Formats: sequence, structure tokens, C-alpha cells
Amino acid sequence: MVIKSKIRTIPDYPHQGIMFRDITTLLKDADGFYATIEALANRYRDVKIDKIVGIESRGFIIGAPLAYALGVGFVPVRKKGKLPSVTIGHDYQLEYGTDRIEIHTDAISSGEQILLVDDLIATGGTAEAAVALIQQVGGVVVECAFVIDLPDVGGRKRLEARGQTVFTLCEFEGD
Amino acid sequence: MVIKSKIRTIPDYPHQGIMFRDITTLLKDADGFYATIEALANRYRDVKIDKIVGIESRGFIIGAPLAYALGVGFVPVRKKGKLPSVTIGHDYQLEYGTDRIEIHTDAISSGEQILLVDDLIATGGTAEAAVALIQQVGGVVVECAFVIDLPDVGGRKRLEARGQTVFTLCEFEGD
Repeated sequence: MVIKSKIRTIPDYPHQGIMFRDITTLLKDADGFYATIEALANRYRDVKIDKIVGIESRGFIIGAPLAYALGVGFVPVRKKGKLPSVTIGHDYQLEYGTDRIEIHTDAISSGEQILLVDDLIATGGTAEAAVALIQQVGGVVVECAFVIDLPDVGGRKRLEARGQTVFTLCEFEGD
Repeated sequence: MVIKSKIRTIPDYPHQGIMFRDITTLLKDADGFYATIEALANRYRDVKIDKIVGIESRGFIIGAPLAYALGVGFVPVRKKGKLPSVTIGHDYQLEYGTDRIEIHTDAISSGEQILLVDDLIATGGTAEAAVALIQQVGGVVVECAFVIDLPDVGGRKRLEARGQTVFTLCEFEGD
């Protein structure tokens, strides 16, 4: 598949033993980037979606063009302390320690249909935290969409176990 | 203008005396977000542009949809240590201390026509550093485009003094 073939793998980044899937080679390629957004847009053009939530910061690069393509609003979920108005936050587990993402409490109206977007799903910890934030501010998560799935790391199953559906464009096994 | 009216001002953020211009209220508004990207796309549809460079991370939310709208590639300029392959970096002055942005050395081919995009131009320090990076990897900066200009802070003049042209959608004076 053309999209997968344009993603570069960088061994041992950010540390030994990790095969990092680098989408910058896909993004800089005009055809590859366009095909990526179109593949997502085609899935959702006939679905009722009010807003797209993208996770900082690579999720912005996929989620914002998709919001434009679908003619809907875009809401950023950001690392802690980055959003200027009233927020709620959710902690999630990292390999060592925890991190926190936040959303503006007025970003979503009650009952709005939300598509969650990020570039990649690995363990699913960040996505799970983002789903919780969207639900806390009253949104309904229609689906969670990612360019890349790392199925061996289990994130898709984790989201599905919480009742979410997951859509991805390509997968890398053996991670 | 509809775009300006949808930008929220948050007084004293991130610190006392700063009027923070918050684009999240524009982004979440379907019509406002679409109009923003269209206003930029309309300016560049007949201009030869090979790639858009967006500055992390709000520049991703404007630059990536614009790249999709124009059918060109997207290149992220990121804070230090975030890009996984070979980079060059450029330091720039903050109010206290310095920060550094980086670009992949293979992100741009020699002679490519580049549009630089960010959400806002204030002092222009980050944009000036991004222009330098684009030029160092061989790109030609066609123009620097921002949603918001803060003319009193002088960023536009600073870029123009270095031979760049600047395009903005709205301005807030008195900052």
C-alpha cells in the first residue's frame, strides 16, 4: 500500500530496541499526504461528525486537514499547561512515570459526535485518556482513527475493550 | 471580519499584562476553521509552492490543512529533540533565555519553493529561525503566512527587513 511504503522506520529511536515509525517522509510527499487524508475523509464523509479531536502534536497534522476536508471544527488535546482557558485533564501511564493531557471544557457541546485522531496507536494509553476527556466534556466518540496501528502493542484491543471502534490505514507488526 | 471575531482574548495569560489571542475558539467553529484555511488557500492556489513548513505546534493546525488544500507536502519544524532523523537546528531568543527549533535535513530538496506557516507572528523570532533553517536545507521561502499579526510587537517588520514577504489574515493592535 502506497501510504505504508512512504513511512520510514528508524531503528533504536528514541531508545535501543524501538523501531520508530516516522511519518515525516509520508507528510512531505504531496501524493502520500493527500492520499492519507483522502483515505480517512472517504471513510467519514457520510458519517455524522461534529468535530475532530487531534492529539498533540502529530495528531494535529492528520486531524486538522481531516477536519477541513469534512468541513467540521477541530479541537486540540494538548500536553498539560498548553491550553489557555479552563481545562480538564487526564493522567496516563508512560513507560516510566505518568503524563497528562488536557482539553478546554468548552471545546465540545453536550452530545456532539466526535472523531478522535492521532498518527499512531501503540499501547493506546494516550488515546484512552483522550476518549475519557471527550466523554467528560459531553462528547460522543464515534470512532478513533489512526494512520498507523502497531497491533502487537495492544492499543486497538484496549480501546475496543472500552467499547470504542478503531480505524487505521496501515499496520507494522513485530513492534 | 468573521475570522477575527472568532478568536478569543484571554487577559494575563501566560503571565500578567499579556493579552493572549486564543485560536481554539476559531478552530472548533466549522465555518470559521474552513474560512481560515480557504482564505490562505485562495492566496496561494496560483502560486508555485512545493511544500508547506509549519512550526510546532499550532502552526501544524493551520499549515497541514493548507498543504492538503493545495495538494503539496507538509514539513514540520519542531522543538529540539522531537524529530527522529538527522536534523539541523537554530536557536532563537525568548523573553528569558533561548529555545531551539529543528528541521530534518532531508525534508526539503534544493530549490523547492516553500511557504512558511504559523498561527501568529509576534516578535518574529521563531519565524526568523524557521526561515534560516529552510534556507540552510536549500529551500526558497516564497512567503510567510500567519492567521494573526500583532503589529506592535514588530515581527512582520523584522521578517520584511530580511527580505521576506508576510501575509496575515487579521491583526490585533495594542499588544
